[in-house]
Amino acid sequence: MSTTSDSAVRAYINVHREEFLDDLAAWLRIPSVSADPERAADVRRSAEWLAGRLTATGFPTAEIWETDGAPAVFAEWSSGDPTAPTVLVYGHHDVQPAAREDGWHTDPFEPQTVDGKLYARGAADDKGQVFFHTLGVRAHLAATGRTAPAVNLKLLIEGEEESGSPNFPALITKHADRLACDAVIVSDTGMWSKDTPTVCTGMRGLTDCQIDLYGPDQDIHSGSFGGAVPNPATEAARLAAALHDDERRVAIPGFYDGIVELTDRERELFAELPFDEAGWLRTAHSHAALGEAGHSTLERIWARPTAEVNGIGGGYQGPGGKTIVPSAAQLKLSFRLVAGQDAAAVQQSVRDWVAARLPDGIRHEITFWGATRPCLT
Amino acid sequence: MSTTSDSAVRAYINVHREEFLDDLAAWLRIPSVSADPERAADVRRSAEWLAGRLTATGFPTAEIWETDGAPAVFAEWSSGDPTAPTVLVYGHHDVQPAAREDGWHTDPFEPQTVDGKLYARGAADDKGQVFFHTLGVRAHLAATGRTAPAVNLKLLIEGEEESGSPNFPALITKHADRLACDAVIVSDTGMWSKDTPTVCTGMRGLTDCQIDLYGPDQDIHSGSFGGAVPNPATEAARLAAALHDDERRVAIPGFYDGIVELTDRERELFAELPFDEAGWLRTAHSHAALGEAGHSTLERIWARPTAEVNGIGGGYQGPGGKTIVPSAAQLKLSFRLVAGQDAAAVQQSVRDWVAARLPDGIRHEITFWGATRPCLT
Repeated sequence: MSTTSDSAVRAYINVHREEFLDDLAAWLRIPSVSADPERAADVRRSAEWLAGRLTATGFPTAEIWETDGAPAVFAEWSSGDPTAPTVLVYGHHDVQPAAREDGWHTDPFEPQTVDGKLYARGAADDKGQVFFHTLGVRAHLAATGRTAPAVNLKLLIEGEEESGSPNFPALITKHADRLACDAVIVSDTGMWSKDTPTVCTGMRGLTDCQIDLYGPDQDIHSGSFGGAVPNPATEAARLAAALHDDERRVAIPGFYDGIVELTDRERELFAELPFDEAGWLRTAHSHAALGEAGHSTLERIWARPTAEVNGIGGGYQGPGGKTIVPSAAQLKLSFRLVAGQDAAAVQQSVRDWVAARLPDGIRHEITFWGATRPCLT
Repeated sequence: MSTTSDSAVRAYINVHREEFLDDLAAWLRIPSVSADPERAADVRRSAEWLAGRLTATGFPTAEIWETDGAPAVFAEWSSGDPTAPTVLVYGHHDVQPAAREDGWHTDPFEPQTVDGKLYARGAADDKGQVFFHTLGVRAHLAATGRTAPAVNLKLLIEGEEESGSPNFPALITKHADRLACDAVIVSDTGMWSKDTPTVCTGMRGLTDCQIDLYGPDQDIHSGSFGGAVPNPATEAARLAAALHDDERRVAIPGFYDGIVELTDRERELFAELPFDEAGWLRTAHSHAALGEAGHSTLERIWARPTAEVNGIGGGYQGPGGKTIVPSAAQLKLSFRLVAGQDAAAVQQSVRDWVAARLPDGIRHEITFWGATRPCLT
């Protein structure tokens, strides 16, 4: 029997399997729900549990990093090799709220093993993944006989991801020096299936906005004035409708400029996956696939930029009819971005496009809420 | 001094001016607000006052006609000439609610004369017009020496116009025989100016509807599924945007089929009116004119059929952003119709047009609320 590095890692894991799972279960029992102010002490206990476990694993540095909200955990383990790259693992130790009423068959904070699967809130998002990164280090050291990892290893495990990471930008800005790295690994992404190893090589960015349109200074009678003055609800609809062409490509000039297209090999690899579109539509609660022409569903959701109407509203929306030309309407749009797109440039394209399309008599305002950069390995 | 029929009428009016205005003021003091259940007795008192006044004027027949709501008044005066035509005057004796807080400088139900103008709720809509029809009969008889009008005269003055005339169709169906006539005069329309006699020769019809669109069975995440499934808010917008072409003509196939176009002479007459578009825009609380290409504002609001978005809604409309693909959206549309258009045919055109434009995966329902026929003399 050969003892490759890979098989040595597997052997170590098999020997320590129960111990690893018991450790993870101890962490999963801490209800670190960042959204619930009453769980703040539990979120802190979760951070302290993790820092203690990282120290026990051998990390020379394991610190609680305070934020204006819930604490994060930072750990560092130098390889000792001045030429070694530095890898930063990102994860989060907080979880979504969970109640039996949500459909749990058992207490979501009391881990249960059923048919060889471990069920608990956070088991797959994201305590499980974070914990297996630390176990991976232990197995790597045990299998190789090393006393330090082959790369300079850093972990940054935040406590507010499930609440939208409100204090995360300030945290990484404050500690930018200590977070310097050559690569970031994020294991808070999807898994294709338990039989298919999954490496997520890119994450789309996001920018979203609200467009407010103003026409008449008040709602006016559509019999007296309709058909002779601009209607902001009509103009909001015309904007939303013009977002995509008849091939469902985003029709904002410049939107696709500079994007990194999928390679032929990537498209082949996507196409080789055993994708069950009917099953996917069930998870989407949807009844048909529809999107950018010339691309598969997987390409559309993983690797193509999109424009989506998240909300539209204007005029009378109560029961029955009301024959008005409304005074105002609004549109909420979000744009998923891929590598090569710059959020600020996309925002400017949207602003230019809106301004160019509206008729005289319609005043508008655009508010962008934020921008998340796309990334691609 | 010549005594033409016209000048004799004027002479009679001048002599009786104060008496006429006192009579009208007495009626205007009755707060016949049909929308307010607490005013039901006042609406009835208004009907009784009018019936009494019509009898005093000489109408051989003046009846209160009951409905399931507020009472109407019917009066009849035969000319005695078997070849005379029969003219039916339609009007209403109910008024809109009025409160000092709405901007009235004085009690809206206590008539005030300022700069030669009489101010009170109902003075111009529609008690004033109805009352002057009856005064016209008195002047006509006095000036000509006749004892009966030159035409067979009928009046139908309803009590629920300001509440949408919910019982009026049943009323005229029930009394169709007694309402038989050669012409209907409606003086509940606009007046160009106090110096320009106004005859309204047509009234547009109306049909309005709600279109409900359903996509995913629940709101879904736009990052996970957006760009790959149909979005009902996008489809509602695409429908609303497709209502008009780039020339702002209604783009529903068949919509204009069979309509009675304005004659060249009518367009000339419209164009000769001293129309102050800037002033009109102020009354429309609007900042630009916009509508069907090739037609003036007056043609658009008086004589052209229109399609208007009265309301649109779907997805998230609260503060900030929410990155969803919404599960449903709705659209409220109204269509003004002109002579030659049949409401049922227009409804069918809308149904066909909607069904043909929606992609797979979007289910829809259309509800039409009603239809008012257009008319043209």
